[in-house]
Amino acid sequence: MAKRIITISREFGSGGRFIGEETAKKLGISYYDKNMIGQIAEKSGLSPEYILEKAELSPRKGLFAYAFAGRDNTGKSVEDLVYEAQRKIILEIAEKEPCVIIGRNADYILKDRTDVINVFIHGSVEQKTKRICELYHVSEAEAKSMMAEIDKRRMTNYSFYTNQKWGKADNYTLSLDSSQLGYELCEKIIMECMK
Amino acid sequence: MAKRIITISREFGSGGRFIGEETAKKLGISYYDKNMIGQIAEKSGLSPEYILEKAELSPRKGLFAYAFAGRDNTGKSVEDLVYEAQRKIILEIAEKEPCVIIGRNADYILKDRTDVINVFIHGSVEQKTKRICELYHVSEAEAKSMMAEIDKRRMTNYSFYTNQKWGKADNYTLSLDSSQLGYELCEKIIMECMK
Repeated sequence: MAKRIITISREFGSGGRFIGEETAKKLGISYYDKNMIGQIAEKSGLSPEYILEKAELSPRKGLFAYAFAGRDNTGKSVEDLVYEAQRKIILEIAEKEPCVIIGRNADYILKDRTDVINVFIHGSVEQKTKRICELYHVSEAEAKSMMAEIDKRRMTNYSFYTNQKWGKADNYTLSLDSSQLGYELCEKIIMECMK
Repeated sequence: MAKRIITISREFGSGGRFIGEETAKKLGISYYDKNMIGQIAEKSGLSPEYILEKAELSPRKGLFAYAFAGRDNTGKSVEDLVYEAQRKIILEIAEKEPCVIIGRNADYILKDRTDVINVFIHGSVEQKTKRICELYHVSEAEAKSMMAEIDKRRMTNYSFYTNQKWGKADNYTLSLDSSQLGYELCEKIIMECMK
């Protein structure tokens, strides 16, 4: 079956979001990332700011925080409500139009579709640190600490909701080292897989 | 730096060996797999049959078997001697000529070179089972059990000698799902990365 949808999971600082955005432009298809937040807010009734913090990252205290999160009388935590709204939006988007979706466990959420390719973008610590320093105007030490925290929280969120290991090659159609290959070649390879 | 060497790690049944061999032919470069065994035998003084069994797979009893393996007076087990001979051969081959090397932890052994791309080929359980049944004339149940055993022994051998996790996207320049992409597209993508 022809592929219509690209999900991009990525290590923080690997340029995965940039690669996804450029690929969407080149293919002339929609691009979903933070622009989903409004829709998730509407569906869940929670504020966009709250969702921005919660939608893709685990609580700062890690996996245990999920277990001990306050729950409503249906047994759902606020994290679960955000996740459920996000899941519905992603399923709707995929049904509606060809697109690139960044992060948010879209690879797992869309696992029953056959028109999706799942991409994981990773990179070397040196290159990722360099990029984070430039993008966020932080020191090398700060960049390394941001990288460690954000990837850990993405990983925890992913394993909590998918029971899969984030970054394991098996989960993705293709995994690319953007530091070794360069962003343009990554885009070219992804587009090759959509033909 | 231009790339000269391709290492291919692969799940059993994923067609990784076939993809590697075809890529070597198309690029007109050497291909190393079982044809290394003679050289390893010569270097280690052990028999080719013995090396064929030991060179890439852990002992059947798994990781503990490494710990409790008999050791000579330098503290080395026979597994270590085979591994050391194999490591030297792979370093020599990489120095000598552009090539494709299948398995044998070559990705890790060549980690200090900048002219190497490391590829991991994986696939769906259904497709891998189908291929194993056809290639080895075994039942589906036998294929699944071969797949589980061989991948486990490759994984154990890899983590024992490299301290890295086999199949983790981060270890490889690119990881490809041969069931989703097809062998020819995998070859094309690998060749694209060598340009």
